[in-house]
Amino acid sequence: MSSSCIFCRIATYELAATIVHDDEHSIAFRDLHPKAPTHILIIPKQHVSSVNDVTNDHAVALGHLFVAARAIAEAEGFAKKGYRLVVNTGSDSGQTVDHIHVHLMAGRAFTWPPG
Amino acid sequence: MSSSCIFCRIATYELAATIVHDDEHSIAFRDLHPKAPTHILIIPKQHVSSVNDVTNDHAVALGHLFVAARAIAEAEGFAKKGYRLVVNTGSDSGQTVDHIHVHLMAGRAFTWPPG
Repeated sequence: MSSSCIFCRIATYELAATIVHDDEHSIAFRDLHPKAPTHILIIPKQHVSSVNDVTNDHAVALGHLFVAARAIAEAEGFAKKGYRLVVNTGSDSGQTVDHIHVHLMAGRAFTWPPG
Repeated sequence: MSSSCIFCRIATYELAATIVHDDEHSIAFRDLHPKAPTHILIIPKQHVSSVNDVTNDHAVALGHLFVAARAIAEAEGFAKKGYRLVVNTGSDSGQTVDHIHVHLMAGRAFTWPPG
C-alpha cells in the first residue's frame, strides 16, 4: 500500500471509482477513458508497481486477476463472445499508473496486432 | 494435458518450438507470426482452455506467467523500455488456440487502444 498511488487509494476506498468486482486479492473498476463498450481495470490490492517488480511471492495475487476477469465476464454477460486482457509495462507500452493493472476490454471485435 | 492441444504438445516437447523460458509452471516460445520485434507466447504447462475456465486452483500457475514475463524481459534486455502482455479469450478477441497463452510483445512502441 502506497499512499501516493491512486490505485492503492481506490483499493482502500479512499478514492471513488465505479467498482464492478471486489474480493480478497483484487478489485476492479471502470476505466475513465474507455476504449471499448466495456473497459474495466482489474488490480491486485497489494501494491506491485509493474511486471518488472513481480516475484514468486506475488503469484497467487496476480493469478487471481484471471479469476476476477472470469467472474466479471460471467457477471457482465460477455464471456461467450470474448474479451481481451492487456497489461502494459514501461514507456514503450504506455503504462501510465505504476500499480499493475489488467485492462479488461469487451463488447466489440478486437484487431490484431494489439496496438 | 490434452494430446490434441498443440500448446500441450509444445509443453511436453513433443512438438518443436523456439523455447526461450522453461520452469516448473510455464514455458515460453517465439510466436511463429510475430507482430513486434520480440513476440513470445508464455503458457501454463497445465492445460486451461481459456480465461473462461479459470478457477482458484489455477491461480499459482497463472500468476507465475507474470513471473516468467519478468524473467524473459530481463533476459532479453527490454525490461526497462517496456512491453505489452495480451491474453485473448473467445472470438471477439481472436483467440486461436484453446490453451491460455500470454502474448509478450516488445521492441517497438505500442499504440492505444490495443486493437
